[in-house]
Amino acid sequence: MQKEKEMKQVPEPTIKRLPVYLHYLIKAREEGAMNISAPAIAKELNLDPTQVVKDLAYTGIKGRPKIGYNIYELIHFVEEYLGFNKVNKAFLVGAGNLGSALMAYQAGQTLGLKILAAFDISESKIGTKTGQVNVLHMKNFSEMVKRLDVTIGILTTPGDVAQKVADEMISAGIKAIWNLTPAYLKLPENVVVQNTSMYSNVAVLLKRLEHSEKII
Amino acid sequence: MQKEKEMKQVPEPTIKRLPVYLHYLIKAREEGAMNISAPAIAKELNLDPTQVVKDLAYTGIKGRPKIGYNIYELIHFVEEYLGFNKVNKAFLVGAGNLGSALMAYQAGQTLGLKILAAFDISESKIGTKTGQVNVLHMKNFSEMVKRLDVTIGILTTPGDVAQKVADEMISAGIKAIWNLTPAYLKLPENVVVQNTSMYSNVAVLLKRLEHSEKII
Repeated sequence: MQKEKEMKQVPEPTIKRLPVYLHYLIKAREEGAMNISAPAIAKELNLDPTQVVKDLAYTGIKGRPKIGYNIYELIHFVEEYLGFNKVNKAFLVGAGNLGSALMAYQAGQTLGLKILAAFDISESKIGTKTGQVNVLHMKNFSEMVKRLDVTIGILTTPGDVAQKVADEMISAGIKAIWNLTPAYLKLPENVVVQNTSMYSNVAVLLKRLEHSEKII
Repeated sequence: MQKEKEMKQVPEPTIKRLPVYLHYLIKAREEGAMNISAPAIAKELNLDPTQVVKDLAYTGIKGRPKIGYNIYELIHFVEEYLGFNKVNKAFLVGAGNLGSALMAYQAGQTLGLKILAAFDISESKIGTKTGQVNVLHMKNFSEMVKRLDVTIGILTTPGDVAQKVADEMISAGIKAIWNLTPAYLKLPENVVVQNTSMYSNVAVLLKRLEHSEKII
């Protein structure tokens, strides 16, 4: 059963939509909903109902005809599937504004990640704290990755040092890098990289606004 | 000519890659490069050379056989195409950590956007300043959108008020919203929305790391 699930291919758009469902479902639960149907979710989020059923099926949940999903059960399945209720330990490198924003996120809400510490080389940042996250000197990074068995690195340095820091992360034992810098990283094939470039998102926004070209 | 360009369909992955090229090209220019070839760019960024040629062709640039592109010319074409060297006026709503990170970005580097002001309802934030951006009371938003002819709204509020604030943005005259909240927005069809959910990006990262399922 597990084996079968492991073999299933999951489209990236589905994985990106699941946190959107989750956000909506938590809101609906707070408003007192007990059951919710795929068409109701679809209507609220401007999606196709068939798509919603398909997306949610990846989590292993089964809806009941005419009743839909039990909302508590559904939230549990989505969180479980996304790994948001596990502790995914992460270190952040680059305690600037974007880094601090992510550290502060921790305080109020879960991001599916637990940022255990942040690292920087700037003396003015070392020893400070944002949310519950302390900023430490980068020279301690490698030893602490090993000691705390951290696998995820969040990269929020300036773009021009991103590659160098990413290389340091990998040699310390980091297995997955969330790259929020504008730099493109060249890394070994077995390293997982998720790029979230603010620039790329702005580029798409501006192009769409321009209306001069249709984005396909 | 312009007409013809207007009709061309541009794939979103191309638009997302162009800022990545730009970042690399600016670095290469700083290191003294005068000309650069598509295969050289492709090698550096782990892309297919044919893809690079296709992507860059959308900007209207023409490379020369054996020489490649003049790097100054290429940077100019990419910037021009992305609208990064125009002033794209934006207002930001929600001067929390993520909002402040974006405001601070302005100081050091261009994001293709000029954040003219930020808005919030929290008395502790109103009157403060991050980078060069002042935080004003949200009650002034609508009037200032009209007065300064701002078309882009950056949404960095908590998720539970995102829809309400987005509605306010639209009725004030905003035409494009960059949504950095986890909320899904229901908006009129003619409004441009670009979603950058930190949660969705984390979800993809965690799933990839898990290795249990292949993302397609």
